[in-house]
Amino acid sequence: MNILVINPNTTASMTDHIGRAAEAAAASGTKITAVNPAHGPVSIEGYFDEAMSLAGLLDTIRRNPDCDAVVIACFDDTGLDAARCLTDKPVIGIGEAAYHFASMLSNKFSVVTTLARSVPALEHNLSRYGLDARCARVRSSEVAVLELEQPGSNARQKISAEIGLAVTEDRAEAVVLGCAGMAGLAADLAAEHGLPVLDGVSCAVKMAEAMAGLNMRTSRLGGYAPPPAGKLKHAFGN
Amino acid sequence: MNILVINPNTTASMTDHIGRAAEAAAASGTKITAVNPAHGPVSIEGYFDEAMSLAGLLDTIRRNPDCDAVVIACFDDTGLDAARCLTDKPVIGIGEAAYHFASMLSNKFSVVTTLARSVPALEHNLSRYGLDARCARVRSSEVAVLELEQPGSNARQKISAEIGLAVTEDRAEAVVLGCAGMAGLAADLAAEHGLPVLDGVSCAVKMAEAMAGLNMRTSRLGGYAPPPAGKLKHAFGN
Amino acid sequence: MNILVINPNTTASMTDHIGRAAEAAAASGTKITAVNPAHGPVSIEGYFDEAMSLAGLLDTIRRNPDCDAVVIACFDDTGLDAARCLTDKPVIGIGEAAYHFASMLSNKFSVVTTLARSVPALEHNLSRYGLDARCARVRSSEVAVLELEQPGSNARQKISAEIGLAVTEDRAEAVVLGCAGMAGLAADLAAEHGLPVLDGVSCAVKMAEAMAGLNMRTSRLGGYAPPPAGKLKHAFGN
Amino acid sequence: MNILVINPNTTASMTDHIGRAAEAAAASGTKITAVNPAHGPVSIEGYFDEAMSLAGLLDTIRRNPDCDAVVIACFDDTGLDAARCLTDKPVIGIGEAAYHFASMLSNKFSVVTTLARSVPALEHNLSRYGLDARCARVRSSEVAVLELEQPGSNARQKISAEIGLAVTEDRAEAVVLGCAGMAGLAADLAAEHGLPVLDGVSCAVKMAEAMAGLNMRTSRLGGYAPPPAGKLKHAFGN
Amino acid sequence: MNILVINPNTTASMTDHIGRAAEAAAASGTKITAVNPAHGPVSIEGYFDEAMSLAGLLDTIRRNPDCDAVVIACFDDTGLDAARCLTDKPVIGIGEAAYHFASMLSNKFSVVTTLARSVPALEHNLSRYGLDARCARVRSSEVAVLELEQPGSNARQKISAEIGLAVTEDRAEAVVLGCAGMAGLAADLAAEHGLPVLDGVSCAVKMAEAMAGLNMRTSRLGGYAPPPAGKLKHAFGN
Amino acid sequence: MNILVINPNTTASMTDHIGRAAEAAAASGTKITAVNPAHGPVSIEGYFDEAMSLAGLLDTIRRNPDCDAVVIACFDDTGLDAARCLTDKPVIGIGEAAYHFASMLSNKFSVVTTLARSVPALEHNLSRYGLDARCARVRSSEVAVLELEQPGSNARQKISAEIGLAVTEDRAEAVVLGCAGMAGLAADLAAEHGLPVLDGVSCAVKMAEAMAGLNMRTSRLGGYAPPPAGKLKHAFGN
Repeated sequence: MNILVINPNTTASMTDHIGRAAEAAAASGTKITAVNPAHGPVSIEGYFDEAMSLAGLLDTIRRNPDCDAVVIACFDDTGLDAARCLTDKPVIGIGEAAYHFASMLSNKFSVVTTLARSVPALEHNLSRYGLDARCARVRSSEVAVLELEQPGSNARQKISAEIGLAVTEDRAEAVVLGCAGMAGLAADLAAEHGLPVLDGVSCAVKMAEAMAGLNMRTSRLGGYAPPPAGKLKHAFGN
Repeated sequence: MNILVINPNTTASMTDHIGRAAEAAAASGTKITAVNPAHGPVSIEGYFDEAMSLAGLLDTIRRNPDCDAVVIACFDDTGLDAARCLTDKPVIGIGEAAYHFASMLSNKFSVVTTLARSVPALEHNLSRYGLDARCARVRSSEVAVLELEQPGSNARQKISAEIGLAVTEDRAEAVVLGCAGMAGLAADLAAEHGLPVLDGVSCAVKMAEAMAGLNMRTSRLGGYAPPPAGKLKHAFGN
Repeated sequence: MNILVINPNTTASMTDHIGRAAEAAAASGTKITAVNPAHGPVSIEGYFDEAMSLAGLLDTIRRNPDCDAVVIACFDDTGLDAARCLTDKPVIGIGEAAYHFASMLSNKFSVVTTLARSVPALEHNLSRYGLDARCARVRSSEVAVLELEQPGSNARQKISAEIGLAVTEDRAEAVVLGCAGMAGLAADLAAEHGLPVLDGVSCAVKMAEAMAGLNMRTSRLGGYAPPPAGKLKHAFGN
Repeated sequence: MNILVINPNTTASMTDHIGRAAEAAAASGTKITAVNPAHGPVSIEGYFDEAMSLAGLLDTIRRNPDCDAVVIACFDDTGLDAARCLTDKPVIGIGEAAYHFASMLSNKFSVVTTLARSVPALEHNLSRYGLDARCARVRSSEVAVLELEQPGSNARQKISAEIGLAVTEDRAEAVVLGCAGMAGLAADLAAEHGLPVLDGVSCAVKMAEAMAGLNMRTSRLGGYAPPPAGKLKHAFGN
Repeated sequence: MNILVINPNTTASMTDHIGRAAEAAAASGTKITAVNPAHGPVSIEGYFDEAMSLAGLLDTIRRNPDCDAVVIACFDDTGLDAARCLTDKPVIGIGEAAYHFASMLSNKFSVVTTLARSVPALEHNLSRYGLDARCARVRSSEVAVLELEQPGSNARQKISAEIGLAVTEDRAEAVVLGCAGMAGLAADLAAEHGLPVLDGVSCAVKMAEAMAGLNMRTSRLGGYAPPPAGKLKHAFGN
Repeated sequence: MNILVINPNTTASMTDHIGRAAEAAAASGTKITAVNPAHGPVSIEGYFDEAMSLAGLLDTIRRNPDCDAVVIACFDDTGLDAARCLTDKPVIGIGEAAYHFASMLSNKFSVVTTLARSVPALEHNLSRYGLDARCARVRSSEVAVLELEQPGSNARQKISAEIGLAVTEDRAEAVVLGCAGMAGLAADLAAEHGLPVLDGVSCAVKMAEAMAGLNMRTSRLGGYAPPPAGKLKHAFGN
């Protein structure tokens, strides 16, 4: 099984980081291809970056047709709906994958993400998926995305502090880490706080394996109907 | 990986049917153990049957500790919350698994279940999971659970007719089959109607593999805290 | 008028306590029969206890047909839906009765219950009844159910402290006591805090009198349709 | 026990009709005082009539302090919130009483009211009470309020037709009659259609008896805080 | 263009204050007529005052037919639905106007109003408009309406403190001032706190200009259907 | 006042059409600048087109800083959140403007849009704005966007038929036309069907005038915080 894991920002070191997390989660027969677009923002923090990464993200899907499922490895599930119009392979966002699993492990979960500016986009997604009813709160740790790539930052400490508050203030029974760059921290933080801590990258890889394993296909009726050929050609120039 | 698949009713032929569907969905390294309680209702159709099957269901979980995940193979996700108190292994209901996947393949899905008396319990679950926002309608086909086991019944025909209405009246983009006994019909009905048709048993097996594959554990904080040892002993007599 | 009041746990002293509270609330012509099942958990604290008490609870209803209404005297409204399939007499949970009355006495109320593990089940019920929109918060006092039966415990003090917080933090205009065992405390706490404090047992008895007084019957259409005779016989052995 | 039943319109024949329905529902020790304001609209059909009846309604409450509970006998629960500021006795609307009972007898109910213009006000109330989640649909029968008072109208027939549609189209398990003037029709229509049919007047009388029987008081905190004495004097001139 | 701005309380100094705020907001070609009823409460703080002001408010609309739009200048949008039955000119409440604008300037806003007793009515409105999803919290500053008219009160200071809490505790991105009497404070408080602070009076005037400028008319179908002529005559005596 | 009206697709004739509709709605002192991006899809019908138009749309905003407000003239409110990060001038979508006005003219409205594939994106927006509670249904007329530009198509007829169904089936009290290309049809259809029919382009122009007239600014806190200068430079190359 081939899973295409797209980091929609252009920071190659983060793509590597995400690729390694994806491989660690994948089953033995699964091949992970981790890529990022050539053009677009270096990190995705809020609505503007999201919008500016879409053309590159969709072009990346278009250029990589030989896969069984696609993972969008940005926690705001960048371009998820548009991507589902472009391929009938399952397309899974790392945010949504983590939310769905968390809702099957706990009565209520909280999210700990990076910056305050990213919070409304995540709340928006949760409401759209219906899972806002299961999310106690989306918390920001005030750790910037690329700070997570820097050795010696106190990112882990800030994130851990927010997890502590999620338990005491939100009565969260599980915590979702709200950034692809936090992939390596989950196991350790779970042990520290004694509750499930979910990382979206590994969640999405397993969700993709599950869906591709059943040969599931995105619906072609209604909102995910494929664009007419002329529009595709116009968009991608071939 | 070992997955315990529990049919909470006592009809052994249905357990076999479910077991075969589970095996067909399972990865090569997954061992399926399909069981049913010794005592309880012969089919689960509505709130009363659900309640009367719980003691047997929970006892079955208790007697089968050597598994990596538990699937509850009744579409009303019988006893899901109580089961999650009893083990920290992932416990997945076939209803919830299908709803979660359907919400990642379509903007809106409908459910086609058995009898009208079962509809409110499913609506209740959807609302509890937050996924009522994504479900267009729960439809009954007026096919009794055990009728699905009878060769020569017109069950398939009635179910297909409701799927047709789900597309035209509900504008559903995908359909979930609302009974473990419908497991064999999904692929064929999907081809007939040209949209994703999901069977809960295979969905739940893949969801269980995914969660166990990441070594996920049900939260022990809050609502799923394990009962005190004295209560367990009192409940199960050992 | 005869009202069957069922304590679904097996602690007889608590059944007596509940019976006395029910009698204190009942009209002069109302006969209260307070009973508990022979088998099942000694207290109901969360999803597991709830599930394990259902067979005993339903059997108790079956064995006591000569009543005009049934009260389920556990605050999580154990088995309410299943019980409504078993009899067309009104069946009222003490939780729901208190929530309905509180929503007619205040714009917003809070609940003060026993342990944190019981909170999600109550939140689940409130959402199912539609009354989550009127409930500011479900608070746990960390008083175990049976602690309420012990003279000399500081249970009252802990509950009073939570009521204080419900007023200042939740802006609750009324408080519902979230355990049958708190029945005796309501009047005193209401006087202390200057707002309505509702006890579910007395609420449910009056609701039962009201409904039976109008000769109301639970609907037999849809989700509360009675189980077929064969299933009843199989369940109860006669 | 004394219950003040206020018909907020000025049609005396309707007040008599309501008074008789209230007496039929009342317990033997309950005294019903059915009154209507001297001034205001002759019937309440929609938002404008509602608004124009408020001063008369509130003045009527003010002039009748010797009661144990107040029933507002118009199905749109005219002035309910304002009335609760004016007295700490329980104040119950006939709409809300019927909705609360219906939600304890069925999974889902529909309402059959008079004119289309009244529907949004009832939908608004249901949403405010939280019970819109339990109401399948508010239907209008296109029977004007005062037509219900006319012998020989085909009002009953139109209402019955809508109940039929509530069962087949809305899958309602119970029906609430949405006008005080329909009080006499409930039993007969219930028998005809084989499901609970609730009349708000009798529901509200029993709810009032229940609440007064427990000596319940409307909260004086927050939204129902009593107006300052100066404002009361200014409003009522004494 | 002529806009009728109605202060539904009878305090003339407040009508002047509101009129000046309306004129400051109005376009050059807009004529503002600020009026108040002859009879009714001196201030509107909660449900009772609201109810007692309705007859005067509606009569005022009736007596001023020569306008292109009506603004109801009390923050609880007193009588909005009834007013829309009485005229097909656009009728805009100052609360709703501010909420609609705030939801187009921010992801989430908070409201800072006067007394705690007014909060539930505002929450009720927000839920009715659908905009509760966008409102983080309705806060009371414990400033009485008429205190805002008194020079030397510390009203501004209390309001500013609540705005500070709205930012830090509610994560509000904008704030709506919840009283017509706060009209003059918005610009200054916006500058102080660095976020949009909206005043309902100016919002409603601009909304009225916009709607009248497009010649919009309130729907005459359904809930806002005009009352029959007989009822109008009966209500207003001519 | 200068209002920048952006048609986010690249069809110049449609931009002209939209520009004329905007000018017809604008006040005498308002200057309309109607533009479209140089690159992107020729029409926006669903999620894919939306995504592919974003870079062009945002670049267009960036290149036109001399305006007092921005209108996004595509009914799915393409890129609204991202645009609000890019400028603190009010940014108004034609969909949202029409929904907000419709909710102040009616208790419930329906939307009549172009193709079925566009419906979920509109439903998603309505839910995000909170106005799904006020929208009875989003209907598709199966008229493609560019068909609206073709003389002799039967587009008007199909749209009119859906409006008829919105009244009879949805009980809608107003109708919103769900495409910028329908701008010219509103007045005529309103007269034909006897209810308010709203066109988004004129609604958004008036909303923009209103907001700019009050010198409103989009919040810079939280989700609409402006991107760092480095990201802007990287995105737009200057």
